[in-house]
Amino acid sequence: MPKVYRSTVLESPIEAVWDILRDFNGHDHWHPEVTSSQIERGHDASKVGCVRKFKLNDGSELREQLLTLSDMETAFSYCLLDTPIPLLNYVAHVRLTPVTDTDATFWEWHSSFDTPKGREGELAELVGENIYMAGFAAIRAQLQQESV
Amino acid sequence: MPKVYRSTVLESPIEAVWDILRDFNGHDHWHPEVTSSQIERGHDASKVGCVRKFKLNDGSELREQLLTLSDMETAFSYCLLDTPIPLLNYVAHVRLTPVTDTDATFWEWHSSFDTPKGREGELAELVGENIYMAGFAAIRAQLQQESV
Amino acid sequence: MPKVYRSTVLESPIEAVWDILRDFNGHDHWHPEVTSSQIERGHDASKVGCVRKFKLNDGSELREQLLTLSDMETAFSYCLLDTPIPLLNYVAHVRLTPVTDTDATFWEWHSSFDTPKGREGELAELVGENIYMAGFAAIRAQLQQESV
Amino acid sequence: MPKVYRSTVLESPIEAVWDILRDFNGHDHWHPEVTSSQIERGHDASKVGCVRKFKLNDGSELREQLLTLSDMETAFSYCLLDTPIPLLNYVAHVRLTPVTDTDATFWEWHSSFDTPKGREGELAELVGENIYMAGFAAIRAQLQQESV
Repeated sequence: MPKVYRSTVLESPIEAVWDILRDFNGHDHWHPEVTSSQIERGHDASKVGCVRKFKLNDGSELREQLLTLSDMETAFSYCLLDTPIPLLNYVAHVRLTPVTDTDATFWEWHSSFDTPKGREGELAELVGENIYMAGFAAIRAQLQQESV
Repeated sequence: MPKVYRSTVLESPIEAVWDILRDFNGHDHWHPEVTSSQIERGHDASKVGCVRKFKLNDGSELREQLLTLSDMETAFSYCLLDTPIPLLNYVAHVRLTPVTDTDATFWEWHSSFDTPKGREGELAELVGENIYMAGFAAIRAQLQQESV
Repeated sequence: MPKVYRSTVLESPIEAVWDILRDFNGHDHWHPEVTSSQIERGHDASKVGCVRKFKLNDGSELREQLLTLSDMETAFSYCLLDTPIPLLNYVAHVRLTPVTDTDATFWEWHSSFDTPKGREGELAELVGENIYMAGFAAIRAQLQQESV
Repeated sequence: MPKVYRSTVLESPIEAVWDILRDFNGHDHWHPEVTSSQIERGHDASKVGCVRKFKLNDGSELREQLLTLSDMETAFSYCLLDTPIPLLNYVAHVRLTPVTDTDATFWEWHSSFDTPKGREGELAELVGENIYMAGFAAIRAQLQQESV
């Protein structure tokens, strides 16, 4: 079961970062890979158990379910329900922690999943770089723009 | 800051217990102290951030907010917003864990709060016995009845 | 990466159970599979990083290293260094939690590991039953005997 | 019960920081407030339960006990046994987490304690600034020097 772990520090207060990340239906506004997103059945995006259906740049469609949401720990987790890529039993965790001495934010994004033998490295790289690292960069850029 | 911790084992599978406890607006159906409950603004009871307003047997009214809900960890946490009893900064956690060898459920309920000096012991006892232990007993009785 | 999780409840106070389990070099006194054990280099068994070398009933020899020890959380974790069975990257966790209403103890024992494809189920069963469940039974029997 | 939380980011790999912090008897080498330290009874400093007796610049003597040490989570915790300052039930936690994109280290240091009414703010400030923030600065300086 490959595991992917990526973390970064954003030079913005945790409230500003959580404000963006907390919205389970908002990733189409910031993640470069996501073109559109909606929550199924008209549920609220902060309802644990809700499902987001979204499209990637290449036209493929995915569905993910919110498993955990914690305003107290500024964290959430979710799993993949449908995907064209062989990421099975994929569960991911996002967590923010304050860096108190610079009023910055420590952001962790990690997951584990099953995949056909032989593709572990390739898919761990894809998830870590194209999803997590690209997400870090996108939020960093957005927050810098806002603060101008 | 007094801390209260109570735990018990219920002779029922974790799914059956979580099915009851997960509903943040369902405690009027099982807790002997709660007579009525509703979620403000018509929100869903599994929406993190929602507020439940409820009445106790003695007619007093309380408001509590859902801070965390995790289907993955079968856990939630909440805080008190309004209460006639001096429980300040009250944050409580509920967590279920499976007892695999007997298909039972380990249930933890704990909290911390501030209160006027001199009342710590009395209020910790009130919370631990009248709320947590009484809640354990009520769910245990309900599950036994269901299984008949 | 197979995961094994087993848990039980012992009808003894957490102090009595921790008293036995805390000793990383004491499993030859209670686990039916372990015939002898010693800590390498004469280190103390509560020194994080110490290595226990022990023999099983069938004569095979294993080495395990203590990774974490917490008196506060009544928990420890360890990994396998050498083993004749193909359990790779094996990391295991033991944790005790008090059951307050009956003064009993909730005991969790879980691990994850890698193993050759096709042997996952067999080895997960071996670990879960022959090591964890057998360990639960042995400690339960020992504590009952002590309390007579 | 006052709580103190401080965190920072060090521009060094987690292994280098853990190498210094892991030694429960090494703080006299880096913390500006500590002049000498020894582990009682000749125990190893990585033995959970060991006690360090140390002196501060002003000549006062303190004793602290190691409660938890985790190489897996790069973390430890400890409590105060004897102190001339009224920090009662003081339990502190140190934890390192890797910042993967810059190969840096996120360092958290936090605690809770009891103290006579009216002195909470003053002592929380003392602990947060003179101990934790001063410790961050000292390790940062030492690592920068090493890397020259």
